[in-house]
Amino acid sequence: MKTYKVKVYPENIEVIAKEGENLLELIRKSNIPINSVCGGEGVCGKCKVIVKSGKIDTESTTHLGRSEIQKGYVLACLVNISSDLEIEIPLESRLEEGQILLGNEKLYSKVSDFVRTESLEKKSIFKLFPLTIKLFLNLPYPSIKDNKSDLERIYREIRRYYDFPIMQTGLSVIKQIGNLLREADWKVTVTLGMRNKTTEVIQLEKGDTSCNNFGVCVDIGTTTVVAELVNLNNGEILGVKGSYNKQISYGSDVISRIVYATEKKGLDDLRNAIAENINALINSLAIESNIKLNDITSIVCAGNTTMTHLLLGIDPGYIRKEPYIPTVSFVPVIRAAEVGIKINPRGLLATLPSVASYVGGDIVGGVLASGIAESEDLSILIDMGTNGEIVLGNKDWLCSSACSAGPAFEGSGIKCGMRARNGAIEATSIDKNFEVKYSVIGNTKPHGICGSGLIDLLGELLKSKVIDRRGRINDNLSTDRIRDNRGCKEFVVVWGKDTDTGDDIVITEDDITNLIRAKAAIFAGTLIMLKKLDIPIDEVKHYYIAGAFGSHLDIEKAIFFGLLPDLPRNRFKFIGNSSLTGARQYLLSEEARDKCESIAKKMTSFELSVEPGYMEEYISALFLPHTDLELFPSVK
Amino acid sequence: MKTYKVKVYPENIEVIAKEGENLLELIRKSNIPINSVCGGEGVCGKCKVIVKSGKIDTESTTHLGRSEIQKGYVLACLVNISSDLEIEIPLESRLEEGQILLGNEKLYSKVSDFVRTESLEKKSIFKLFPLTIKLFLNLPYPSIKDNKSDLERIYREIRRYYDFPIMQTGLSVIKQIGNLLREADWKVTVTLGMRNKTTEVIQLEKGDTSCNNFGVCVDIGTTTVVAELVNLNNGEILGVKGSYNKQISYGSDVISRIVYATEKKGLDDLRNAIAENINALINSLAIESNIKLNDITSIVCAGNTTMTHLLLGIDPGYIRKEPYIPTVSFVPVIRAAEVGIKINPRGLLATLPSVASYVGGDIVGGVLASGIAESEDLSILIDMGTNGEIVLGNKDWLCSSACSAGPAFEGSGIKCGMRARNGAIEATSIDKNFEVKYSVIGNTKPHGICGSGLIDLLGELLKSKVIDRRGRINDNLSTDRIRDNRGCKEFVVVWGKDTDTGDDIVITEDDITNLIRAKAAIFAGTLIMLKKLDIPIDEVKHYYIAGAFGSHLDIEKAIFFGLLPDLPRNRFKFIGNSSLTGARQYLLSEEARDKCESIAKKMTSFELSVEPGYMEEYISALFLPHTDLELFPSVK
Repeated sequence: MKTYKVKVYPENIEVIAKEGENLLELIRKSNIPINSVCGGEGVCGKCKVIVKSGKIDTESTTHLGRSEIQKGYVLACLVNISSDLEIEIPLESRLEEGQILLGNEKLYSKVSDFVRTESLEKKSIFKLFPLTIKLFLNLPYPSIKDNKSDLERIYREIRRYYDFPIMQTGLSVIKQIGNLLREADWKVTVTLGMRNKTTEVIQLEKGDTSCNNFGVCVDIGTTTVVAELVNLNNGEILGVKGSYNKQISYGSDVISRIVYATEKKGLDDLRNAIAENINALINSLAIESNIKLNDITSIVCAGNTTMTHLLLGIDPGYIRKEPYIPTVSFVPVIRAAEVGIKINPRGLLATLPSVASYVGGDIVGGVLASGIAESEDLSILIDMGTNGEIVLGNKDWLCSSACSAGPAFEGSGIKCGMRARNGAIEATSIDKNFEVKYSVIGNTKPHGICGSGLIDLLGELLKSKVIDRRGRINDNLSTDRIRDNRGCKEFVVVWGKDTDTGDDIVITEDDITNLIRAKAAIFAGTLIMLKKLDIPIDEVKHYYIAGAFGSHLDIEKAIFFGLLPDLPRNRFKFIGNSSLTGARQYLLSEEARDKCESIAKKMTSFELSVEPGYMEEYISALFLPHTDLELFPSVK
Repeated sequence: MKTYKVKVYPENIEVIAKEGENLLELIRKSNIPINSVCGGEGVCGKCKVIVKSGKIDTESTTHLGRSEIQKGYVLACLVNISSDLEIEIPLESRLEEGQILLGNEKLYSKVSDFVRTESLEKKSIFKLFPLTIKLFLNLPYPSIKDNKSDLERIYREIRRYYDFPIMQTGLSVIKQIGNLLREADWKVTVTLGMRNKTTEVIQLEKGDTSCNNFGVCVDIGTTTVVAELVNLNNGEILGVKGSYNKQISYGSDVISRIVYATEKKGLDDLRNAIAENINALINSLAIESNIKLNDITSIVCAGNTTMTHLLLGIDPGYIRKEPYIPTVSFVPVIRAAEVGIKINPRGLLATLPSVASYVGGDIVGGVLASGIAESEDLSILIDMGTNGEIVLGNKDWLCSSACSAGPAFEGSGIKCGMRARNGAIEATSIDKNFEVKYSVIGNTKPHGICGSGLIDLLGELLKSKVIDRRGRINDNLSTDRIRDNRGCKEFVVVWGKDTDTGDDIVITEDDITNLIRAKAAIFAGTLIMLKKLDIPIDEVKHYYIAGAFGSHLDIEKAIFFGLLPDLPRNRFKFIGNSSLTGARQYLLSEEARDKCESIAKKMTSFELSVEPGYMEEYISALFLPHTDLELFPSVK
């Protein structure tokens, strides 16, 4: 078979391609982190590369602007290689870890703030009792009179400190005990892991090493992965790092990843991708804090149900088929090494339990972290990530549902949408002459608009009457910013002369429709849950907004847009990455673990799509802010 | 390096040997089962081979008779190879499985009797609840309303039958669940394993396979290994098979095996030997009953503490070093595959708990099977295998000790001693002219004397005054059967013309001393335990004799010899291989497992060697039957 050389810049790597091989797949295989929201279907337009030399035979696409095409831009997923090539992968098509933490300090410093300062109610601070503990034992010497076996001697000593009902030890540890105890002169440190209400001796070390005991908690988002390194002896957070989820190369949302895992037999690829992701984060956290991987004895992951299945290498196929049944909700604690996570070889991995296929461990962690489940007050928790999830309840009951909001708020499916990073417009204002002022993350030339920027922009467009309450663009206004583009109306936010690509940044009527649908899904979901339980919206005393997205949001504009209900503003609270906070609590406290299990057991889930009345609510919410203005008195 | 060819008959195998290689080691490596009691030290004289051709340079030994030397017999362990050889391994030097069951029907039919007919008190018949159960589940189909995850659906259904507090499932099983449930139309059979008070789903099969669930129980003796195949659904014994413990090639007693394991780094050899042993037994049991190895879902092993350590590959080194501490007494249930036992790949292996280094799971199993621990009456259990162990107690308390009786009763360390198999003299009578009548196992020409034969013989020698109460041979009697051999007196039991080798079968004064020491150790141990607890011997209402050896013993002569106390004869009861019975009960019943754990926890152990007064008792017992004839009124 014929092969070609593909040179990739700026890496300056040469890769060998087979005749007809897909360029996106080649780049993926070469382990160069490239963005691809749709998973290689030519739909999202995110895998742009610049062809420097070589013959290209590609399909036409609306995802590339004229000036881009002139510069040699193509979509990698639409190229089948038929000659030697030289290509460059530009910044906007890359998934680079550095960019998240370093290139977008603004976003991540906020996330970190939430992480570090604990945006938690006092009542949900739990007693420290980590998933793995180290205990120094100064064992009494054996004698003819005290001739218990080595293992029972260790158990007896442990039980002087803790009343563990069931203790276990694996054969590989038992095999080491005899010599190790004697070489250590009976002074040893045991690492104890809490597994399913049993306690496992997972490691024995000579002498007193109890001060070196660390854990990692991870929020596995569909889009980003954030990990914290924690000192298990005192709960101190030693560091936090984030990266894009490498699985993005295989599709941006859970559905496209499930399809890739099952129909394209890509389960292993996806499992490897997330394991590499997490390992890279752990490694760099460990280096930064100068600790050994071997001293990391446990890891707790929170993610949606699909992310959890993929992490564990479990086929997620049935999650997307009616009646939407996951393989497992309460995942047993396993050894991290079983799924390729590199910490102590016998270290444990726990995953937060989920409620249903679309209400995962991330939400359960969020409920844990928010303290909803311990409060007399009725609260709502809303997590607007790649999916939108809503939880309603108090200490007596909890119900949840997932909205098919889609990834519009993450900038996906929006012509000039992008994630919140350098070059993203995050706030706008429109004056009476329709001139637009905007602020850009990183103070660079703008490249696109991020989620919070879009919500902000829609509020402005509505206020300035560029759009009506149905989101339709009014083309009778006297401004050249409003124009028709092949039958679709659009509003020019920034002219090409001021953008980094030279192309205009616009918002189209289709974009607006997408965004309104997304907000309608979330708002209707909230309302139907309240209605079903016969609770007036005003009885909701706390409205927690989770997700990195939340911390950017202008509450006033989000209410004006109809995404958030018109409640007194002081009831809203951003709790940041509450999934990560929940995972940390799970890592650090037995009480939290019990609480978490009971939350997952207690919480019911609605499948909104089959809920009677949901469609009507959804349709009513397709107005800005809503068909029923009585719901928005302050807007009225 | 120079090499030689060694041809081995009757196998007709050619093996290549290095210059100077030890012949015993070569034979072992070639996997030809050869006897070696001392483990290759030239001490036991059991590894006799016949040299057919080739030059031999060997040390002289007293273990070979004149006629043997003439026939070309050598001890393999004393030969370093320095030429091409042709050798034959004669029957008496072989460890062949066939011989045990087929060549010695008499012994083994008795063992099997005990196994099959349950020589148990009624009170120790336990409720059937095996270590692994199979349960057919006809799961309700999932729906939007009933959207529990697959695993929780399985758990919920299991809990309709059993109230298991803690359920676990390994990742490898979880990964199969999704597809398997749907392919099986939600009709599946789960295999549940009881592990340490938790319940593990170890396997999922399509459809109803619950009728195919089998287990194996094994008594791992130092000398023999006996395995039973059991139907776990009803407790029926489908077959029983025995073999010599292949570890015998590395030494006949636990001490020589510990030395081989630790000082000669032979732990792996020993572990492999016993695993091969057990696998061969299981295989042949499975073939005979026409069942699949995959349907054997659990195995329970009972053995002394050293055997258990070796089975698990745990260094037994500290067992023989003061203060005699084993690594583990309560061994967790593991997967059989972890130690190379070939049943269902996820099948479980449990080992009976031990009490101390020299009071093992075999004894705990014996106590369980005997019913001692459930009786108001005071009982003694004595197990005379390669070691002698004594248990004293009732339902409220139990104490145990091990006697360094040595292997004399197994024919080892006795000039013409042999194990109880074809050619062994098992009973004798001596008339007033000192003529000897004898019966031989297998009705062949005699080859040696087995343990029960030796006890029988000593009783006869004492009665006919050939020996005095100290075991000294009276050389003033007018018979040519009494003679001096290089300064050691001996009594000729059978003249060479009537034996299978042509050499006389004798018992020497040294043999008699060895046997008296062995019985003294056991009797003194019994007495010191009673004394320490201030219990008159007559209060012992039941005296259980365990071990294959026991079933051959003539009670009357054993009392006359001073091995057994002078109690009413109806208090003695042979309970055969009670270790195997205990293992079967452990396999079959949760109640038995709990009982077994509580026996092992409750039982105390004396270390006799440090017990004050033990030496005096021992010395007093060196008389026949005893220094204190008041203890033996019926003999007096």
